[in-house]
Amino acid sequence: MLKKHTNSAYEAELDQLRDKILLMGGYVEEAIAQAMEALKDRDSEKAKRVISRDKLINTLELEIDELCVELLALRQPAGSDLRLIITGLKISTDLERMGDLVVNLCERVIELSREPLLKPLIDLPHMANLAMGMVREALDAYVKHDASAAKEVCERDDEVDNLDSQIVRELLTYMMEKPGSITRGLGLIMVTRYLERIADHATNISEMVIFLVKGKDVRHRGIGD
Amino acid sequence: MLKKHTNSAYEAELDQLRDKILLMGGYVEEAIAQAMEALKDRDSEKAKRVISRDKLINTLELEIDELCVELLALRQPAGSDLRLIITGLKISTDLERMGDLVVNLCERVIELSREPLLKPLIDLPHMANLAMGMVREALDAYVKHDASAAKEVCERDDEVDNLDSQIVRELLTYMMEKPGSITRGLGLIMVTRYLERIADHATNISEMVIFLVKGKDVRHRGIGD
Repeated sequence: MLKKHTNSAYEAELDQLRDKILLMGGYVEEAIAQAMEALKDRDSEKAKRVISRDKLINTLELEIDELCVELLALRQPAGSDLRLIITGLKISTDLERMGDLVVNLCERVIELSREPLLKPLIDLPHMANLAMGMVREALDAYVKHDASAAKEVCERDDEVDNLDSQIVRELLTYMMEKPGSITRGLGLIMVTRYLERIADHATNISEMVIFLVKGKDVRHRGIGD
Repeated sequence: MLKKHTNSAYEAELDQLRDKILLMGGYVEEAIAQAMEALKDRDSEKAKRVISRDKLINTLELEIDELCVELLALRQPAGSDLRLIITGLKISTDLERMGDLVVNLCERVIELSREPLLKPLIDLPHMANLAMGMVREALDAYVKHDASAAKEVCERDDEVDNLDSQIVRELLTYMMEKPGSITRGLGLIMVTRYLERIADHATNISEMVIFLVKGKDVRHRGIGD
């Protein structure tokens, strides 16, 4: 039952899967970076360009899923290859959702760019950098089969969560003091929440990588065991 | 290559997959209903019970994924069975995320239950009912292989989105008129956004069902073609 495929066409397909996932992750990272620049510069045109580029991310999800289905149907993989492909299917979903979140973020940026920024952005760009790092390192852990790197990504999610709470608290204080700032404050709160969810998706990916490497499922069981 | 498995143990496993997915969906629906009751009654104890029951949903995700991996590894399915299993893997992720969203919703309910409700709840329960209906019907379409029912679910997502915008607009007006209501208003906005995202996940499931039935991927291509 545990057939081992060693032919090079099969290996090339698995490489292609890894490459496509890395490419998709690269697009997501770039989208986050551009969206945050658009926020800082109140540049609604740039935000619109990021939104229109989301279709590249969506197309890659379809390509990855198609490749996984083909691999499953034609190669009947087993063991760690099977887990690699299943993880690929789940990762493509997480990356696609991140792309959607960046689109949502850009929609807020377009609204926010109509008025001066409520306050200089300090913590939000920091949070965005953390989230981008988590995406990059989660995917790096995937291609390198590195469970301990994946575990580190999971642990860094707490930092993002704390930053999220702190930013929301601070914005609420602004909003209470100055009711005219409520819409803008809410916009920034939504941006914070989108970044926090992007980090959550990176955590999901990391948990899947641990499953991939160790062959056991750490999700919902804590990551320390 | 296209082996056809007709033995009854295999059929029983596929039935088990469908049953587990329906059960998981049932738990999610129940959690949404209970969370909304807790919100209406400002019952933080009930909200805590819903949070603690989320582990049942998480456990089912693991069981479903395990069953799918087993089916893929041992049965090497092809064609529509393969798609059924892959769709199962993706659906379990969506349902688990819905469970997480209900947990987030309950956390807001616990905060909101400390003060009187900002306003009588009318649109929010309506939105919750719509979302629950979408979850139920998306899973029903999955087990019945009914693409046109799945398409209807996708179309109803617009109704939820419109309701979401309307509720947020109304709450913002409250918050601007009465700064003392900002924290409570924001809590209700978050609840609205969680329900909107639950409906999005039901839409994702429906798109997967169309892929399952028609063997083509409608995601990111519009659902009319």
